[in-house]
Amino acid sequence: MRIVSLEEIKAVLPKVDLIAEIEAGFAAYSRGDVIVPPVGEMHFDSPPGDVHIKYGYIKNDEIYVIKIASGFWQNTAYGLPNGNGMMLVFNQKTGQPVAVLQDEGYLTDVRTAVAGAVCAKFLAPKNIERIGILGTGLQAKMQLKYLDSIVDCKKAIVWGRSETSLLKYQSEMNDSGYAILTTRDMDEIIDQCQLIVTCTASEAPLISRVNPGTHITAMGSDTKTKQELDASLLSMADLAVADSRPQCEERGEIHQAMKVGFTMDGVVEVGEIIAGNHFGRTDEDQITIADLIGVAVQDIQISKAVLNHLN
Amino acid sequence: MRIVSLEEIKAVLPKVDLIAEIEAGFAAYSRGDVIVPPVGEMHFDSPPGDVHIKYGYIKNDEIYVIKIASGFWQNTAYGLPNGNGMMLVFNQKTGQPVAVLQDEGYLTDVRTAVAGAVCAKFLAPKNIERIGILGTGLQAKMQLKYLDSIVDCKKAIVWGRSETSLLKYQSEMNDSGYAILTTRDMDEIIDQCQLIVTCTASEAPLISRVNPGTHITAMGSDTKTKQELDASLLSMADLAVADSRPQCEERGEIHQAMKVGFTMDGVVEVGEIIAGNHFGRTDEDQITIADLIGVAVQDIQISKAVLNHLN
Repeated sequence: MRIVSLEEIKAVLPKVDLIAEIEAGFAAYSRGDVIVPPVGEMHFDSPPGDVHIKYGYIKNDEIYVIKIASGFWQNTAYGLPNGNGMMLVFNQKTGQPVAVLQDEGYLTDVRTAVAGAVCAKFLAPKNIERIGILGTGLQAKMQLKYLDSIVDCKKAIVWGRSETSLLKYQSEMNDSGYAILTTRDMDEIIDQCQLIVTCTASEAPLISRVNPGTHITAMGSDTKTKQELDASLLSMADLAVADSRPQCEERGEIHQAMKVGFTMDGVVEVGEIIAGNHFGRTDEDQITIADLIGVAVQDIQISKAVLNHLN
Repeated sequence: MRIVSLEEIKAVLPKVDLIAEIEAGFAAYSRGDVIVPPVGEMHFDSPPGDVHIKYGYIKNDEIYVIKIASGFWQNTAYGLPNGNGMMLVFNQKTGQPVAVLQDEGYLTDVRTAVAGAVCAKFLAPKNIERIGILGTGLQAKMQLKYLDSIVDCKKAIVWGRSETSLLKYQSEMNDSGYAILTTRDMDEIIDQCQLIVTCTASEAPLISRVNPGTHITAMGSDTKTKQELDASLLSMADLAVADSRPQCEERGEIHQAMKVGFTMDGVVEVGEIIAGNHFGRTDEDQITIADLIGVAVQDIQISKAVLNHLN
């Protein structure tokens, strides 16, 4: 069994065609070729913490993956990151352990950002004047980073609640290759950006309207209570996309919209678009919205790709 | 994060008071101090295989444990063991990984055997002329090994279906300190043994009657379909013991007996006996039966003990 450190993982990732790997995963998922059992959960009270165990496999693949992810919200008090985790890779034919990827949650961050880039590839308008980012956390940075190879536009506006966080974001993204403006006014995001990525943990809608010719990737909301888009927005979209229809019915933006009459009828999975079984954006003036919850096949694909590219 | 090999685990186990550790675990479980979420499962068709993810923690303990166990029944064709697995230990206050115990399923075998010894300690009659073992597999050997410190009797009869397996068992147990007879006649087990441990994967009852003054530990049946004891036997017992009442209601011997009218009313948990909240055997002539399914707290206790005794 190979033990792979975070440093090794970070060193090997540039060699991986992450877009292609994640696309292949979504396509397999939408084809029905991915087995994803229910998520395992453990909760702790004192100090408060959650552990999630996500696992699954692609039929007739070489491997299966078990991902362990934890969040302990008082860790910062001890100078530790709140999140932690690892991905365990096993041989699908024998059950033998292949590798422990000690990614400390990093691969989840990457595969989440790559999913955003995949959505932009198929759904964003051709002409983007500015990219709008909601949030100033890690994903808000990584989403921009992984859009780099997909979208020509190198101008972004970042929306946040606090001036301090916005300035920190701007300074940390100084070498990102993007010219980054900051704002606390959501109208600037809505009216100046044709590609908007929402990366907050908000539990109340932040975006209440959308202009024609806009694509929104909503990736912050992944629970039954989080919500970044007004529930009416999905009904206004020409195309509503989910990473997983069953998961988006249960949580996230589509889940919220269904409470006010939105139905799953027209919702397309990103894997169906990737496979060519459904069109993506067909017109510059369309409104498209992608709701990403995160699917275990992303973990499977990124683990496998990392392993395949190690020396 | 510490990576602990099977060799290191085997080297450290003799330093651990396994009986005390497993007893403390059962007592904590019966006190309601152990959180054990539902088991995660994955199934494979070609080649056929199963993966189980068992996890849990003792409240206010230092750690939580996630155990991964696999069975791929065609592995022997590749010269590999069918079973494999590992135990992952994490800090309960921060979620940080503490250790990967690469035990390949060995610690599960040990904690299962130790549970048998714990049952014998509280339930077997004082005077044992012969120990009866059903089955010739790994547990059939390990149960005897871990009874060594608990039971004075060093004479055993082993029952099996095939002469070849019986002779193999006898030869492998040559240095065990036990004088071992073999039989294919169950009556010899029933009539000559006061302590019987059932270690088969049978799906039809093997033992159809029981004499006064006998204790049976039934540990082979851990599914909804496996069964080693006639369903009438539990109703004849003066004391019926479970490792976990909820689990034994769902699978194993008690589960089978409930189909023909046995009720959980009088069933005592071994942890209640260990804690002194219920008596064990009170008379040499009693019939006692313990039904063991396996509880995650055994994994927690043995993982922690191994870690605490490593240099």
